[in-house]
Amino acid sequence: MESCGIFGALMLNGENAVPYVIEGLIALQHRGQESAGIAYVEKEELKVYKKMGMVTEVFGNGVMKKFKSFNAIGHVRYSTRGRSDIQNSQPFHVRFRNEHFAIAHNGQIENAEDLRNYFEKTGTIFLTETDTEIILHMLIKKLNKRISKWTLEDIAQIIFENIFPSYSLLILFKDRMIAVRDKKGYRPLFYYVSKEGYFVSSEDSAFNFLNAASEKVYEINPGEAIEFSVHGVKKYRVPDTEKMFCFFEHIYFARPDSNIFGKNVHFVRKKLGELCARENPVDADIVVPVLDSGFSAAIGYSKESKIPIEMGLMRNRYVGRTFISPDQREREIGVKRKLPPIPEVIKGKKIVLVDDSIVRGTTMKKIVKMLKDSGAKEVHVRIASPKVINTCRWGVDIPDKRELIAANFSLDEMVKEIEADSIGYVSLKSIKSFLMSEYDNYCFNCFIENIKRVNTR
Amino acid sequence: MESCGIFGALMLNGENAVPYVIEGLIALQHRGQESAGIAYVEKEELKVYKKMGMVTEVFGNGVMKKFKSFNAIGHVRYSTRGRSDIQNSQPFHVRFRNEHFAIAHNGQIENAEDLRNYFEKTGTIFLTETDTEIILHMLIKKLNKRISKWTLEDIAQIIFENIFPSYSLLILFKDRMIAVRDKKGYRPLFYYVSKEGYFVSSEDSAFNFLNAASEKVYEINPGEAIEFSVHGVKKYRVPDTEKMFCFFEHIYFARPDSNIFGKNVHFVRKKLGELCARENPVDADIVVPVLDSGFSAAIGYSKESKIPIEMGLMRNRYVGRTFISPDQREREIGVKRKLPPIPEVIKGKKIVLVDDSIVRGTTMKKIVKMLKDSGAKEVHVRIASPKVINTCRWGVDIPDKRELIAANFSLDEMVKEIEADSIGYVSLKSIKSFLMSEYDNYCFNCFIENIKRVNTR
Amino acid sequence: MESCGIFGALMLNGENAVPYVIEGLIALQHRGQESAGIAYVEKEELKVYKKMGMVTEVFGNGVMKKFKSFNAIGHVRYSTRGRSDIQNSQPFHVRFRNEHFAIAHNGQIENAEDLRNYFEKTGTIFLTETDTEIILHMLIKKLNKRISKWTLEDIAQIIFENIFPSYSLLILFKDRMIAVRDKKGYRPLFYYVSKEGYFVSSEDSAFNFLNAASEKVYEINPGEAIEFSVHGVKKYRVPDTEKMFCFFEHIYFARPDSNIFGKNVHFVRKKLGELCARENPVDADIVVPVLDSGFSAAIGYSKESKIPIEMGLMRNRYVGRTFISPDQREREIGVKRKLPPIPEVIKGKKIVLVDDSIVRGTTMKKIVKMLKDSGAKEVHVRIASPKVINTCRWGVDIPDKRELIAANFSLDEMVKEIEADSIGYVSLKSIKSFLMSEYDNYCFNCFIENIKRVNTR
Amino acid sequence: MESCGIFGALMLNGENAVPYVIEGLIALQHRGQESAGIAYVEKEELKVYKKMGMVTEVFGNGVMKKFKSFNAIGHVRYSTRGRSDIQNSQPFHVRFRNEHFAIAHNGQIENAEDLRNYFEKTGTIFLTETDTEIILHMLIKKLNKRISKWTLEDIAQIIFENIFPSYSLLILFKDRMIAVRDKKGYRPLFYYVSKEGYFVSSEDSAFNFLNAASEKVYEINPGEAIEFSVHGVKKYRVPDTEKMFCFFEHIYFARPDSNIFGKNVHFVRKKLGELCARENPVDADIVVPVLDSGFSAAIGYSKESKIPIEMGLMRNRYVGRTFISPDQREREIGVKRKLPPIPEVIKGKKIVLVDDSIVRGTTMKKIVKMLKDSGAKEVHVRIASPKVINTCRWGVDIPDKRELIAANFSLDEMVKEIEADSIGYVSLKSIKSFLMSEYDNYCFNCFIENIKRVNTR
Repeated sequence: MESCGIFGALMLNGENAVPYVIEGLIALQHRGQESAGIAYVEKEELKVYKKMGMVTEVFGNGVMKKFKSFNAIGHVRYSTRGRSDIQNSQPFHVRFRNEHFAIAHNGQIENAEDLRNYFEKTGTIFLTETDTEIILHMLIKKLNKRISKWTLEDIAQIIFENIFPSYSLLILFKDRMIAVRDKKGYRPLFYYVSKEGYFVSSEDSAFNFLNAASEKVYEINPGEAIEFSVHGVKKYRVPDTEKMFCFFEHIYFARPDSNIFGKNVHFVRKKLGELCARENPVDADIVVPVLDSGFSAAIGYSKESKIPIEMGLMRNRYVGRTFISPDQREREIGVKRKLPPIPEVIKGKKIVLVDDSIVRGTTMKKIVKMLKDSGAKEVHVRIASPKVINTCRWGVDIPDKRELIAANFSLDEMVKEIEADSIGYVSLKSIKSFLMSEYDNYCFNCFIENIKRVNTR
Repeated sequence: MESCGIFGALMLNGENAVPYVIEGLIALQHRGQESAGIAYVEKEELKVYKKMGMVTEVFGNGVMKKFKSFNAIGHVRYSTRGRSDIQNSQPFHVRFRNEHFAIAHNGQIENAEDLRNYFEKTGTIFLTETDTEIILHMLIKKLNKRISKWTLEDIAQIIFENIFPSYSLLILFKDRMIAVRDKKGYRPLFYYVSKEGYFVSSEDSAFNFLNAASEKVYEINPGEAIEFSVHGVKKYRVPDTEKMFCFFEHIYFARPDSNIFGKNVHFVRKKLGELCARENPVDADIVVPVLDSGFSAAIGYSKESKIPIEMGLMRNRYVGRTFISPDQREREIGVKRKLPPIPEVIKGKKIVLVDDSIVRGTTMKKIVKMLKDSGAKEVHVRIASPKVINTCRWGVDIPDKRELIAANFSLDEMVKEIEADSIGYVSLKSIKSFLMSEYDNYCFNCFIENIKRVNTR
Repeated sequence: MESCGIFGALMLNGENAVPYVIEGLIALQHRGQESAGIAYVEKEELKVYKKMGMVTEVFGNGVMKKFKSFNAIGHVRYSTRGRSDIQNSQPFHVRFRNEHFAIAHNGQIENAEDLRNYFEKTGTIFLTETDTEIILHMLIKKLNKRISKWTLEDIAQIIFENIFPSYSLLILFKDRMIAVRDKKGYRPLFYYVSKEGYFVSSEDSAFNFLNAASEKVYEINPGEAIEFSVHGVKKYRVPDTEKMFCFFEHIYFARPDSNIFGKNVHFVRKKLGELCARENPVDADIVVPVLDSGFSAAIGYSKESKIPIEMGLMRNRYVGRTFISPDQREREIGVKRKLPPIPEVIKGKKIVLVDDSIVRGTTMKKIVKMLKDSGAKEVHVRIASPKVINTCRWGVDIPDKRELIAANFSLDEMVKEIEADSIGYVSLKSIKSFLMSEYDNYCFNCFIENIKRVNTR
Repeated sequence: MESCGIFGALMLNGENAVPYVIEGLIALQHRGQESAGIAYVEKEELKVYKKMGMVTEVFGNGVMKKFKSFNAIGHVRYSTRGRSDIQNSQPFHVRFRNEHFAIAHNGQIENAEDLRNYFEKTGTIFLTETDTEIILHMLIKKLNKRISKWTLEDIAQIIFENIFPSYSLLILFKDRMIAVRDKKGYRPLFYYVSKEGYFVSSEDSAFNFLNAASEKVYEINPGEAIEFSVHGVKKYRVPDTEKMFCFFEHIYFARPDSNIFGKNVHFVRKKLGELCARENPVDADIVVPVLDSGFSAAIGYSKESKIPIEMGLMRNRYVGRTFISPDQREREIGVKRKLPPIPEVIKGKKIVLVDDSIVRGTTMKKIVKMLKDSGAKEVHVRIASPKVINTCRWGVDIPDKRELIAANFSLDEMVKEIEADSIGYVSLKSIKSFLMSEYDNYCFNCFIENIKRVNTR
């Protein structure tokens, strides 16, 4: 499962864990809006409830009341490449020799195809199209004992040795919950300890509703597996290796109020905006953010450049599918509905247009045209990240190289292509100067010219 | 999957098979109201769409328009023992080495637990709680070649040799569809050949909407597997063995207008009513059927006994859950809502109450009380089948022996228990005299005192 | 509002009336499946909740829990002539000088157009397309005082003097509930008195769920208005005039287990079947009812003729819209899906086909053809009512004379038209001999050649 | 109907107007999220379709396809004081002497109670609880001719003479559409003329999807009524009187990219932010907007004060009802979910917190506490409007004076009450200096100490 969100709760105070998990999933909704599901324990038996749709739709109409469990895990899913289907939605649930466990996964397993082929050679079949299912098979094949006898060490060793990153996992058993973060640490994973219970989440901001004091919130270490039960917390950890924190989590994926890989997301984005301004100064009247994604970076750009932020584009909350048929309108109106321009602000202005990243460039081209149509004198595109020139095999939904504008065009060609007056990015060098020694803990693979990365555990 | 319905279509005239499959499933809705689903082919790839609910709910709101395929299979599900869950609903869909197949199953595999244990020992995991999943694993484990190379013979041999009845199956590949009926022939299975295409169904009455001429409708033989494709029809058949047609299909499960195991269902039920009258004559004023299930038998009872049929109980179509809370009403009102008595008919009358079968006896007890409360002078219960004294391991939802009234009480005790004036059943002897030589082709296991049946293929 | 169902409850024991009203509406669902609604009192204020759909849909999903009221009225609607719209669904709710009342209506006001024109001349506007709205205007215009001062007499006099039948009404005030039945008594109306509260219903069978003892169930008299409140029951009654009980309620509309106009509905239908057999004997093998509507009459026909009832047509419960497009099937399959024939029963038989009535004759023609296609030797149509040759202005949905088969064809022509072997009806004379002195209490207008009826109150 | 949105279309090119109206309503969704509806013409007859819910919900599932009409009007509703009910949702639809018209209203009629009483005295009844219904009655009572004979002058005169502002109206007839804006001009109203057709909208930004050139978009004048038909545009206008543009439309209600009363909304809000900074300077580190409503003003405050904008609070798009029960959490978490603080930004900072207005002050108090809890050193609340000290009788949902914090506390007391370090507003004097001569065209009633306004037409 690629970019998704996971949340788990194991209560110590007799409360029902399910509402907590659902509330946590709502807080992680930005990580996946396609399907939502939970695994929980009912009368000693593991059950799963999942459905296509947003969290509030899936659990609305009082459906939640049916689920009572002292421990539970949940998942919100963002699917890529159209395989949007209930059978691929999570958590997955396995019965083996009359015992059960369930799993929820955020990430993308690098050696999935190899493992799948390996298993298929032995006659193993796959009922889903997800890489997550591989973990289920791996655990069962390697552990020749009853599920209830599996120890934290058993599970952690098998996963760390056989499953290549990226994965942040939650595994639910009827009496415990195990959180696992891969050795590279691609995807974030946090836990919070209170007297009410134990909580695990993809992002720490999802503990907000618990009024969690920040000192009781811990980032699970890369290569660490933690077991939560009524008997307390048990940890297992493999020796440190090279880290690979996904920098795209900072650029785009995580919530601005989350603190991942030791840094506040908004702070990083703002800093990237500053770096962008330093590397790509321009004489302009206003800084216009592409809301909401470009807001943090625009604050940084504005701060560094002293050019004031302005609302050249508003962000319309009430958009959905259009009811106008394509042949009723010559031009598509999608961008105009979502980001309506404010001509009063734009007219006659030299504009710095700030966004977090460019992938294909098609939306950016429409925005630039819209601004020009609204009277902008100049539009200078400033991107608060490096050029995206490679796809990602660790869980970020980036299309094939052939579709990436920066992989196929020079800067000058891009300027022409999107009909802007200039384009500026942030260099990796600049990011290195900002992150300093931490630079080496990150994965910048999608920005790097020649990747020589080999598959590694 | 226990008592369910399956339907498949492979079109030869360029039409979309999906609406035909959905229409077929509607005609089989009486076999399962819990979930509905189809497998179909989209751009060379197999897909599945399934959801909890009735067929018209699952495929309403124009959702059907999304599915276009020249071949498709469908399934309606009736789940027993509360395992009502989307992950157990069918068809199942497997990807193996980049090829796909899908399966829909009606029946219950006798050696499921053995096979499951066997597979689990080799580390195979199960993502569903159904016995159907075993067939998927069996095929994959035993056939060491690409799915597209699997021949009809390959598939049929593996299934017939390894999977113990009962099963009527539909297997969909991207270019063909295979129907398999187990050697014993427990569950019915039919196909219809027209110039428009090939159609397969659990019951022949589901071909009605095609205006199928009866001479082009064929019952698939026990131990037969048939492959349908644009290249025509290919058959594979194992030598004849002992048959085990499920007599409960005739008693209760199938539609009256279906013709299964070579006999019209209504005709058999009516005949059972006649036999019941012959074995259990009684001096009474009217024959009252428990609608709809007891109607056919009541016609037979009335015919044989010359006692006229009367509508002592009507059948209310508009019932659903009650909105009155349990504590608002002393007695439960379920039976009274579904089968309201007509006191005008009942008052002062000696009544023969005819139903198709008794399992636990709780509903029958309520009906008898209701009739007495409405003024019935006598109520003589007549059941158009033998006493149900064993559970079923081949797909009929009969509870454990301890819950079966006839397995725990003598006739006299039953009369007392349900507070009727008498009870009468049909004896197996009587059924034998009716079926004659065909008697040996049926499974009467749920009616037989000492079963010595051993697991056999 | 034409043929609809109404139900009211005023609790004396502190319970919530709403679940009772909903349960009552479910029992009256056969009278209208298009919309459902209730009026209730919340914090001294009248409120209405109504929606398109069946009762269980409208009040499902826990929506019912929102409504708490010691008194409430409800309505299920069957709309004719396509004016199916939420703004026409009932109950209606009026605020006048800061006071409220609500109304639910079953029937059709004969002088609606006159009254509407009259009111419109004075500048009154109508926000709905229903005749019911006229009653609201009438009460307000005629009663020059606060709603809370309106007495039972006030209301009854105004309605009885100004509104021409037909109407059975429920009027809800915040502290009381009034039931009104028109002087002619066209539509039935009942109440039930228990220590729990007062209940009013279109049909007495809707009190079943209350376990109402029949001696405490009363038919409200024509020309009677009854007020229910915590202070007890108050009655108002106008002198007896000519009755006009709608005979179509007996023929088709009411539930077989209801007892209206002093007679059990099933009993009347069965009797009509007997009369039909006496008037139209025929040499045949089996009596086949058109289920469910023709079942009672078929029992009567069979009894009188000694020809046994058979299930030549089953009744399929699981039908909805078809998913096959019209161009995919040459012939329409609607009748075949709803009433599948059982050829085993039909083949080579001389059949008496019994139904309650014929209106346009189009469905009957399809059924006859279907029986012949299934091998019937002869099909003799027997209708357990007189020929329908006039439309109805008092609430039964009968189309214009030009569309009524019996108004435009002789018996011989009808036989040809529907391709049967013979047709037989019940004569009014025969009905008179059965009803005797009660005959004059009924409206047979839709069956009578030359109506001279003038508008009367 | 209070603060709502209306949109109409009359096509000249043979297209269906309905999708245009729906698209327009989506663009006006911020003006009302409770119900949505349209009136349209089908076969010469006016029809209405309306439902509780957001526009995309109401018209989703292909329901829109049913409606075809060359002219149509629509309405989105925001209801106050809990009268959320389908019977109060718009448009309303009236049949009078077999002719129809429909109406959609944005505003609140000042003399509604008087007119209602007046009409009730003559026996007129009201089926809804809206003031809009009064307009229907007024037109019918005053115009003694067939609806099709009503001229623009007839309608305009009656409305302008009898109905006291505020109202922006759309009236639909089968062959034309009339837009009316009250003499004071409280609520905005626009039309757009293209060769495709005529379009009317509460805000001009709703014409965006039409790619409307701004020079073809016109604000309808106060006291103007315009009739649109295939014959072109007809206007009626009463002599100019005192204007009363609602200043709250600028402060809060309208979209930032709309241009109402001759001014861009974002520009006005930003200006108010500047004025606020000038009147209430403070030594601080960052300007934090309460997103989204306070963003424009914060830009202005930042510009004037030179204090940089920062994202101290993010705006979470994915909030709905919480699944945590009140007793599971001590403190309510609503504000924290919707506006999660970013402690990294806040910690140790002196903050200027900018919002558009304060009504009760309860939310502001929670935000201030949240900021302090997150480490803010000082929190200075700056409101980009004057103190709200009166309720509104012209359509803005402001509660009773007793609930308004600024009406009950001095500035110092307010600072204490919401536990901020200071509070600052914009004075009316300051607004006057900005608006200059236009100042007198606005209604500032909710800000003024002693209102002497008398009811006027």
